[in-house]
Amino acid sequence: MKMCEPVSCQVDLSAGVMDNGSGHYQKRLNDLAGLYADGDAFATQASVAGDRVVYEVTERRPDAQHGDLIFGVTRMSPGKIGNEYFLTRGHIHAQADRPEIYYGQSGHGVMLMESPAGETRIVAIGPQSICYVPPYWIHRSVNVGAEDLVMVFAYPADSGQDYEIIARSGGMKTRIVDDGHGGWQAVDNADYQPRSPQQVARLFQTTL
Amino acid sequence: MKMCEPVSCQVDLSAGVMDNGSGHYQKRLNDLAGLYADGDAFATQASVAGDRVVYEVTERRPDAQHGDLIFGVTRMSPGKIGNEYFLTRGHIHAQADRPEIYYGQSGHGVMLMESPAGETRIVAIGPQSICYVPPYWIHRSVNVGAEDLVMVFAYPADSGQDYEIIARSGGMKTRIVDDGHGGWQAVDNADYQPRSPQQVARLFQTTL
Repeated sequence: MKMCEPVSCQVDLSAGVMDNGSGHYQKRLNDLAGLYADGDAFATQASVAGDRVVYEVTERRPDAQHGDLIFGVTRMSPGKIGNEYFLTRGHIHAQADRPEIYYGQSGHGVMLMESPAGETRIVAIGPQSICYVPPYWIHRSVNVGAEDLVMVFAYPADSGQDYEIIARSGGMKTRIVDDGHGGWQAVDNADYQPRSPQQVARLFQTTL
Repeated sequence: MKMCEPVSCQVDLSAGVMDNGSGHYQKRLNDLAGLYADGDAFATQASVAGDRVVYEVTERRPDAQHGDLIFGVTRMSPGKIGNEYFLTRGHIHAQADRPEIYYGQSGHGVMLMESPAGETRIVAIGPQSICYVPPYWIHRSVNVGAEDLVMVFAYPADSGQDYEIIARSGGMKTRIVDDGHGGWQAVDNADYQPRSPQQVARLFQTTL
């Protein structure tokens, strides 16, 4: 039996990355077309700063998959499109019964979660708060602060990601927007189309 | 399908605990009899402070097991028995192919790891360093600093713990001791008895 070697990864809180990762990716404004309610505001912003990095992920993936863990660091820039805060694409795990843990390190955000049947949960994330995303919740991170939001995350290595689930419903049911008084609020997404009972049932069947 | 509710747990770095845990336990000096090389020093210290808390764990366990995650916070007091630093009992996962992640928050420690065949690996843990313990490694935390060692951890919910594996071999092969010059060093454990090829093979079979 070949043993995998232990690894030490140092997290740099100010840069929002860690060393010794096995992978790194960045999402730029242009990659996030279609996610925001205000398409005109998005087009205007993308025309001048489409290459701007909105968020980036440094991760460490093991060789094996089943039973192992993936971990890493997410850094999200502050910003808005219209009154809607910068956010990640969001996903449900391809193996939908897999959870995820996010541990806030700096900045202020929320984890926006939606059940297959359309229930919404919102958990605030700040320094030293751990958000546990249970199995079967679609989840997306939103930076509601004025500085970088940095989080450490971990999830089962065989989880996978289904990034299309949100687009298939016209977005998540809820959007997180500036309330105009220095805080954020949750508002309904007018384009949201609930999943059918058949679609919901199928999601609960995507287990190993 | 009943959805589990998301959870937010705030980590208190100075106290070394988190709120909203589902469980909490403390290990006192008396619980650690037999782990240290210097039995006389242990007996002397235990006779006056056997109730002293050496380490404590606050954890959050999900309802389900397979595919889910357990996470929490460990706080280890600083101290020594003779020249040997305070340490946790240590374990291999009962499902030995399960990994664990430790994320240093404050203080200074090492993760002492041993393969079934007796190889040793030592990873330093300080603030913002993540130690990935791959599948099949016996692991034990050691506080080599002068203050509390606080770490956040996560591991698969179906891992289980085999705490007896270390005692069955007369301890881990390596001990972490004060080097007399303000640092630590690794020394051989004279009582260590290597596992047989059959015992090693059996550990690699404890997979789901």
